[in-house]
Amino acid sequence: MKARVSIIMGSTSDLPVMEKAAEVLNEFKIPFEIRVLSAHRTPQSVEDFASNALEKGIEVIIAAAGMSAALPGVIAANTVLPVIGVPLSGHVLGGVDSLYSMIQMPPGVPVATVGIDSVVNAALFAIQILALRDESISLMLANRKSDMNYKVIMANETLKHLSYEYKTN
Amino acid sequence: MKARVSIIMGSTSDLPVMEKAAEVLNEFKIPFEIRVLSAHRTPQSVEDFASNALEKGIEVIIAAAGMSAALPGVIAANTVLPVIGVPLSGHVLGGVDSLYSMIQMPPGVPVATVGIDSVVNAALFAIQILALRDESISLMLANRKSDMNYKVIMANETLKHLSYEYKTN
Amino acid sequence: MKARVSIIMGSTSDLPVMEKAAEVLNEFKIPFEIRVLSAHRTPQSVEDFASNALEKGIEVIIAAAGMSAALPGVIAANTVLPVIGVPLSGHVLGGVDSLYSMIQMPPGVPVATVGIDSVVNAALFAIQILALRDESISLMLANRKSDMNYKVIMANETLKHLSYEYKTN
Amino acid sequence: MKARVSIIMGSTSDLPVMEKAAEVLNEFKIPFEIRVLSAHRTPQSVEDFASNALEKGIEVIIAAAGMSAALPGVIAANTVLPVIGVPLSGHVLGGVDSLYSMIQMPPGVPVATVGIDSVVNAALFAIQILALRDESISLMLANRKSDMNYKVIMANETLKHLSYEYKTN
Amino acid sequence: MKARVSIIMGSTSDLPVMEKAAEVLNEFKIPFEIRVLSAHRTPQSVEDFASNALEKGIEVIIAAAGMSAALPGVIAANTVLPVIGVPLSGHVLGGVDSLYSMIQMPPGVPVATVGIDSVVNAALFAIQILALRDESISLMLANRKSDMNYKVIMANETLKHLSYEYKTN
Amino acid sequence: MKARVSIIMGSTSDLPVMEKAAEVLNEFKIPFEIRVLSAHRTPQSVEDFASNALEKGIEVIIAAAGMSAALPGVIAANTVLPVIGVPLSGHVLGGVDSLYSMIQMPPGVPVATVGIDSVVNAALFAIQILALRDESISLMLANRKSDMNYKVIMANETLKHLSYEYKTN
Amino acid sequence: MKARVSIIMGSTSDLPVMEKAAEVLNEFKIPFEIRVLSAHRTPQSVEDFASNALEKGIEVIIAAAGMSAALPGVIAANTVLPVIGVPLSGHVLGGVDSLYSMIQMPPGVPVATVGIDSVVNAALFAIQILALRDESISLMLANRKSDMNYKVIMANETLKHLSYEYKTN
Amino acid sequence: MKARVSIIMGSTSDLPVMEKAAEVLNEFKIPFEIRVLSAHRTPQSVEDFASNALEKGIEVIIAAAGMSAALPGVIAANTVLPVIGVPLSGHVLGGVDSLYSMIQMPPGVPVATVGIDSVVNAALFAIQILALRDESISLMLANRKSDMNYKVIMANETLKHLSYEYKTN
Repeated sequence: MKARVSIIMGSTSDLPVMEKAAEVLNEFKIPFEIRVLSAHRTPQSVEDFASNALEKGIEVIIAAAGMSAALPGVIAANTVLPVIGVPLSGHVLGGVDSLYSMIQMPPGVPVATVGIDSVVNAALFAIQILALRDESISLMLANRKSDMNYKVIMANETLKHLSYEYKTN
Repeated sequence: MKARVSIIMGSTSDLPVMEKAAEVLNEFKIPFEIRVLSAHRTPQSVEDFASNALEKGIEVIIAAAGMSAALPGVIAANTVLPVIGVPLSGHVLGGVDSLYSMIQMPPGVPVATVGIDSVVNAALFAIQILALRDESISLMLANRKSDMNYKVIMANETLKHLSYEYKTN
Repeated sequence: MKARVSIIMGSTSDLPVMEKAAEVLNEFKIPFEIRVLSAHRTPQSVEDFASNALEKGIEVIIAAAGMSAALPGVIAANTVLPVIGVPLSGHVLGGVDSLYSMIQMPPGVPVATVGIDSVVNAALFAIQILALRDESISLMLANRKSDMNYKVIMANETLKHLSYEYKTN
Repeated sequence: MKARVSIIMGSTSDLPVMEKAAEVLNEFKIPFEIRVLSAHRTPQSVEDFASNALEKGIEVIIAAAGMSAALPGVIAANTVLPVIGVPLSGHVLGGVDSLYSMIQMPPGVPVATVGIDSVVNAALFAIQILALRDESISLMLANRKSDMNYKVIMANETLKHLSYEYKTN
Repeated sequence: MKARVSIIMGSTSDLPVMEKAAEVLNEFKIPFEIRVLSAHRTPQSVEDFASNALEKGIEVIIAAAGMSAALPGVIAANTVLPVIGVPLSGHVLGGVDSLYSMIQMPPGVPVATVGIDSVVNAALFAIQILALRDESISLMLANRKSDMNYKVIMANETLKHLSYEYKTN
Repeated sequence: MKARVSIIMGSTSDLPVMEKAAEVLNEFKIPFEIRVLSAHRTPQSVEDFASNALEKGIEVIIAAAGMSAALPGVIAANTVLPVIGVPLSGHVLGGVDSLYSMIQMPPGVPVATVGIDSVVNAALFAIQILALRDESISLMLANRKSDMNYKVIMANETLKHLSYEYKTN
Repeated sequence: MKARVSIIMGSTSDLPVMEKAAEVLNEFKIPFEIRVLSAHRTPQSVEDFASNALEKGIEVIIAAAGMSAALPGVIAANTVLPVIGVPLSGHVLGGVDSLYSMIQMPPGVPVATVGIDSVVNAALFAIQILALRDESISLMLANRKSDMNYKVIMANETLKHLSYEYKTN
Repeated sequence: MKARVSIIMGSTSDLPVMEKAAEVLNEFKIPFEIRVLSAHRTPQSVEDFASNALEKGIEVIIAAAGMSAALPGVIAANTVLPVIGVPLSGHVLGGVDSLYSMIQMPPGVPVATVGIDSVVNAALFAIQILALRDESISLMLANRKSDMNYKVIMANETLKHLSYEYKTN
């Protein structure tokens, strides 16, 4: 099965974080590829990847990087596919540097960025895009939303007793 | 023609900024609607809008707000459609407050955010999503990219003479 | 006894922090309820809670959340009861994101925010409001202030000897 | 009629901003007083004011200041009345200094802070507190909320035509 | 011997940090007192202390506090003695909140602030002030400067060999 | 009359701001000198100045600079006189860069820093130091404090009428 | 004459700022070229430029950009020539975004960055590099340093009279 | 062999970090010296070092410091050699203070700064400068770049299998 989503990270050290994106895509049975590409250490590979992604059948690109996080922007420069940026923390400025490096793109070359280290949301956003032409995915997303909702409601059942304990304390 | 993209802004005072998104969608002949909805002043309208957007045929939602910019997050809470957040400046903290309010979403409810005031990029990102099932839009995006490229290359022609002038100065 | 204060938190993982608010309310024998509600994961429950809180007899709402902390703002959007926001740290930006998400509300929908993780102060502020129509609570607050004062004065007794030791060192 | 709300500002130069709080209180026919008191230039007056406010019949205190904004904290140190802080911009750090000075209070001495320059919200929060024992004020607050809602809905009527114009453009 | 310097801290928990100031004053045989006073928990004691410090023979006041660090400013409001502020870290915003709370004083009420947690420098600055009328202290300060200088020069002797090792590595 | 205070600024363009320090010193009839010295453009003059200041009879040094504001630190490195730093805004980072450059000095070399652009407070702090051995200056400082206090109290007289107007409005 | 320095900017709108770099290079009679290249709008031109710069005889590259300023990093990725980054302000975050985007490069791909908008210093740093193998340039740099020094010393002559005027005022 | 690069650090405690610069220079067989010099504790040694560096044969200076990091600026003030600044973290503000202290130099005295703690990049940038007149160094730099590239490409081989595992999971 051909990959529909590319998960690109700037360094192999980002793999433990990025695996969560892979898990979410697996959960939705979306075929994906996962690669290390660096705007600064493998610039030509980035360009090759981005220029050919559409043709290869990729539909959405998730690009995660830390520090001077040029990766999603340089990918976006070379493709018309939607690129989702994930700024990574884990360095001295706590990810604000990567957030600013990703999100402040010039008009004409969008990168849509999720929160710092928000790998799960990057994967879900990619899936929301794919769901536009696949009702079964859309339904799975809706169910996942209901589950979240249900878990919070259940948590309140527990809290009811807990809070009662406080009041009579 | 039914709207495919919703442009939602938190206040009518955001209209002059948001019109640029409308212009880009017009350029690509994508039907859209433009509305004011406030997570804080019209919470039920936000929920109604978001809950019904999929059914109404909307495919992508652009939500722009300033300050405590809860709007895109609350919309995302009520739909599985992709929501693109646009943090707006124009208030005392220069848009960093709205950027943080939008982008730091909890796992499970993604908002993909563009740069502060990056209305054009929000529209282009929405179009990139629509282009996934419409090759003619994809082609227009590629042409727009070439035009940008061409303009920069042309600018260099002018600079060549300019820089020569400096050197012999 | 009917709850007079609602302690709402965005996630069950916030419970260990929020328990301190419960302890303070217990100290003043103010009946309260404690619930998990998420502006992003249970938007309708938030709306239901907020719309009915006044009628149910709630007088003050404490709402705590981290990251894109839309919770207190969305509650405030649906009630005329005073809403006290508590921005929580514990995420990568250290609570500045939740502080900005809570405090920069648009004119017309106030959230009064206490310091990052200042759960005790949120509870005390709620009690200060209730004390306006209950002199015994007001007296307890005044006594608590005297106790704090007394503890600092006592601490100085110890320091006197300590500092003397330094001087003759 | 005795003042129920005190509007305190750190400097007469803050008057043009603070007048908006006065207008909101007038709108709700809440008697108030407006005074200049400085934690740094008139420390004893601040203490005198705060120590006697409860006895004088004041129910809520709004305290606004810029830069090292010690005013609300020092007032809160001397009273058990609820103190609402308003950080003011207008100085070189844009109000972040006054926000941090106000909001990061030690446990035991709460100041509930509204957004930078959010004078209207400070007044409304004070009124929400007073509304707890006055149903007519509560009703006025609810009406004001409906009006805000209505204005946004009306704004959309105008936008409908506007957006149509775009689409057919 | 009467204290010439007052070391004031906002909380007993600051004692381990502030002891370093005491050690420096001991090193110079400057009599001092060390006390806990809180602008928010013991406002009247702060005022009493500050109003009487000059008369009691105090010449310089060092005031350290964290978070909403109103302490040095409120002391400065009540005395014409020089007040040296020490912003303390150890809370969620890392001391930037206390730095801003201390340093941004209104014209007319100066607080001279040293770096975050810079307790040693606060003590040395106090000693530099006292040295203005005591040549022996001035000489001790000059010697301390020479010692620092000498230690760095000695460190370089060690590094010479170390760096040689690198070069031939 | 020999200068007792040196006002040093990093650039002649800082003169309009620094004149306010001169005015305050004139008000107290403290003889002073005013000079431009740059840690980066005239490093030897800075060293010469600082090394000889004590001997020349200078008692306090005020050093103001913007951006990478090394000036007060380098002066402090070459003298045991108290050095008061004034971070200046007027550049792109609004003075936060100069504040950090000045205040975060290593242990052993204190610079006591006033607020951004707080030239008046720098002068007053210098005067507070001189007042330690001159009761007449101390008295003038106390009078200046009373005047400030009086002005605020007078301002309230005006406000009383103003606020009354609101209440009956 | 072949260009030895390349001045690259991300947008033609940066030209008025970058001209100052050109003026400094002219002052030292260093041949240079000036071009617009965008990491996001002309990615292939950036790569072509950077890959061939060494061979073309370029010795130093100055790269200036605003916002998500990937330009200097992507150039550095494709050459072993020294790349000097100039973060530009002029956008909503005041250049902090471009500073972080440029300076936080991964190990192995250095960009040496000057201050925000510090175009003159970028040019001088390039010249300092060229001066390493050209004693006449080195001498010109030393003279420029002396001139700066001299101007400050002259400014003090004027200030002497000015300050005297203050003292006798 | 005479040192061509000086590695200067503000404190011996910086040695463990700075050793990585030494290792990179060793890798390229560039002779260097490593010294501790402090703008604040050994100002004259800094001046002596900087004034004589050119004559001694030094070609590039790497200067690393934390907090109020005046060191590279003061060195640059006394030499026309290129000075590379390395802001160090390890203190309460995480290196932002040292970054601002270094990079915001006045026009005329450039310091080219690398990322916070980016010691390896500082060494590589120095080597890039030396490579301008030494083709063998230039070749080694190019090889190092290829190696980095190769390592990333190899990493992808491993990932291919890893990602396959996910897909079939």
